[in-house]
Amino acid sequence: MEAKKNTVEKICEMQTALDILGGKWTFLIIYALLDGKKRFKELERAVTGINTRMLVKELKNLEDHQILTRTAFATVPPTVEYSLTDKGRDLEATMKYLYKWTKDWM
Amino acid sequence: MEAKKNTVEKICEMQTALDILGGKWTFLIIYALLDGKKRFKELERAVTGINTRMLVKELKNLEDHQILTRTAFATVPPTVEYSLTDKGRDLEATMKYLYKWTKDWM
Repeated sequence: MEAKKNTVEKICEMQTALDILGGKWTFLIIYALLDGKKRFKELERAVTGINTRMLVKELKNLEDHQILTRTAFATVPPTVEYSLTDKGRDLEATMKYLYKWTKDWM
Repeated sequence: MEAKKNTVEKICEMQTALDILGGKWTFLIIYALLDGKKRFKELERAVTGINTRMLVKELKNLEDHQILTRTAFATVPPTVEYSLTDKGRDLEATMKYLYKWTKDWM
């Protein structure tokens, strides 16, 4: 069956979203933050297997796209907290169904 | 906030799913096939921007993980059709919410 025009258009639209989100770690970081704001070290522990360099890179990417905010506190040593924006939190339904699929099929 | 044990476990479980699905093209191919079975050339047109080599690789990956089936017909020239399995079709809710997020925020 030929793709309906509608579907082709939707796929084009979703490319923009998946250029940001596409990638295993991005989804997992968002999923971890749906649980509540976290410091860098907490995220590193929550997202098992991610390395520090990759986590820095992914957090920067998500911050650049307003999916999360980074708040620095002038403590000694300095602490940094990450939390989802409304845009980020709005991925909750997507993540919930992805988790359900994982439980059902993996 | 420290990640709840529960969340860390869920993240571990989801890694397996995202090792298969993580990647922009994978989601877009699944989205295209939710619209109905397609031949290789139809998929290539539906998923704008994907190159032939990448499409072959992604289809093989999705077939290996029983997310889609590949059916070859002994026509001249031979034709091959791809369609989602139940496992693949069960990603519909995830994709629907991802598309909604795209519309709302991109």
